[in-house]
Amino acid sequence: MKKIILDLDTGIDDTLALAYVLASPEAELIGITGTYGNVTLEQGVRNDLDLLAMFGREDVPVFRGIEHACDAESFAVTEDSELFHGKNGLGNVEVPVKSDRAPEEKSAVDFIIESVHAYGDDLVVVPTGASTTIAAAMRKDPSIIEKIHIVTMGGSLTQPGNVSPFAEANMSQDPVASNEMFSSGADITMIGLDVTMQALMPMEDTQKLRDTGSAAGKFLADMTDYYIDISIKYDESFAGGCFLHDPLAAAVAIDPTLVTTFPIALKVETEGPERGRTIGDPFKLMTGPKNTKVALAVDSERFDKQFFDRLYALATSLK
Amino acid sequence: MKKIILDLDTGIDDTLALAYVLASPEAELIGITGTYGNVTLEQGVRNDLDLLAMFGREDVPVFRGIEHACDAESFAVTEDSELFHGKNGLGNVEVPVKSDRAPEEKSAVDFIIESVHAYGDDLVVVPTGASTTIAAAMRKDPSIIEKIHIVTMGGSLTQPGNVSPFAEANMSQDPVASNEMFSSGADITMIGLDVTMQALMPMEDTQKLRDTGSAAGKFLADMTDYYIDISIKYDESFAGGCFLHDPLAAAVAIDPTLVTTFPIALKVETEGPERGRTIGDPFKLMTGPKNTKVALAVDSERFDKQFFDRLYALATSLK
Repeated sequence: MKKIILDLDTGIDDTLALAYVLASPEAELIGITGTYGNVTLEQGVRNDLDLLAMFGREDVPVFRGIEHACDAESFAVTEDSELFHGKNGLGNVEVPVKSDRAPEEKSAVDFIIESVHAYGDDLVVVPTGASTTIAAAMRKDPSIIEKIHIVTMGGSLTQPGNVSPFAEANMSQDPVASNEMFSSGADITMIGLDVTMQALMPMEDTQKLRDTGSAAGKFLADMTDYYIDISIKYDESFAGGCFLHDPLAAAVAIDPTLVTTFPIALKVETEGPERGRTIGDPFKLMTGPKNTKVALAVDSERFDKQFFDRLYALATSLK
Repeated sequence: MKKIILDLDTGIDDTLALAYVLASPEAELIGITGTYGNVTLEQGVRNDLDLLAMFGREDVPVFRGIEHACDAESFAVTEDSELFHGKNGLGNVEVPVKSDRAPEEKSAVDFIIESVHAYGDDLVVVPTGASTTIAAAMRKDPSIIEKIHIVTMGGSLTQPGNVSPFAEANMSQDPVASNEMFSSGADITMIGLDVTMQALMPMEDTQKLRDTGSAAGKFLADMTDYYIDISIKYDESFAGGCFLHDPLAAAVAIDPTLVTTFPIALKVETEGPERGRTIGDPFKLMTGPKNTKVALAVDSERFDKQFFDRLYALATSLK
């Protein structure tokens, strides 16, 4: 059984990733750590607690990560994030169950450090937002660097970015932290736009989730319809469904055979127009370590089917 | 026996690529087509004719390509090109033999078109400079697109560029033509900075060429020493030798197993700060055709050895 920590900025596709992990029999979600990006940390943690209540999984602890970039004083949600994820991060759809749980006292940084030491190779950490908390954990306890396994949604190596021609959204939140993470030498699989723009949830699938008759199924369907509608309206690369960015990272954490990866020494540009760009570091091209495995190809058909089947089973089970 | 057309902007590494092809028993150089980039077309063709004379291969015809970018009125060598390749393109070293041959009457465009029809899968065209002539041939006779095999030196997909953070030198000469070439759907292998910055000629090897005692060996050594000296002085990514950009493309045309490639639908940006950037086309990510094979890994050890051994044998044979 693979132990998973989801480091979420919960968000629509973060929610779908959470549902996917909860629906995966090979995975044990040992905790959610909250980060920022699609939403503020506060909103994301609130969403996590409510969603876990809706999924009947209040046994999963939620930890607060760091609220803003390491070189900034605060964080504000961008207009684009609010547009694509709605004001509450969930397509302006209310979670049908409200949790009265609070996040844990322990910090996300400490939870990650302790979990890496406790579980080693059995654990995968899956960041789907800003890299701030992960980098902070590495800074606080550098001994985790050689033990941690990370599968992160973020970056773009062979395709243009989605917040600039060069940068993908997650990596543009805190490029300094992202660069620290990639440059640390840790074992990182990058699930970037190279593959996530090939992983789609088609429009017809949301109705099937709604038809399960469960409150969770209806919630997931309504939320995802918002995402698909916005994609049709504003995303010029719209490909007939919504991109399953974060769910693909979660799925690869559980089953690495879904993607084909390319080993490279990666850096993240921290300044100027390239800020947030994930690109090879030419000074490490010959000497490495080529510690980042960038996913360049994906078995979309297998993933798309598995993703829908698992969400459908989860929604059905909650009737 | 593989038939090769070298489309050269002769240049130091172009010269090394020419020497490599002439020294390769599996390859038959059926012609050189002159383009511009490191040098003007005139200078490049002059160099080609003299070099072929020095190598005792005046049987190889030389054709004039197109002199400037398809969206420009003229071409001027950049300061950087003049710095790295010298005023004559050959590190300011004189070719010890002067040819009195003239280039062919037939144009490079017509020679390429006729050769593709005549030789089909037995032919590989190897552009190592601006893509103008290749794109012009495709425009004049689109029926070559489905028959031609191209192995081009140029571009950079997973590493920064060398004339801007985004663009490699060859692809920045005529991005419109390069984009036409990649977008045509033709079978193209891209040998970009991703791999050529892992292919080196170390400093100690030039002396061995000189020690062969041949005029060609001395010329190649003196020319390459210029390139290495300049690299030490100005190239901050200097890796202990000169990059064998063009020779690697020539070598892959002869032996594709030297590299591992990644299939992608590639475009070349034609405007703004990204001008000349080779990057995936997101609108073709799902639908293709993924006709460009971008080399991402190279067996440097095998190539470096083979490169030196063949040049050494050639220089020795000319004593």
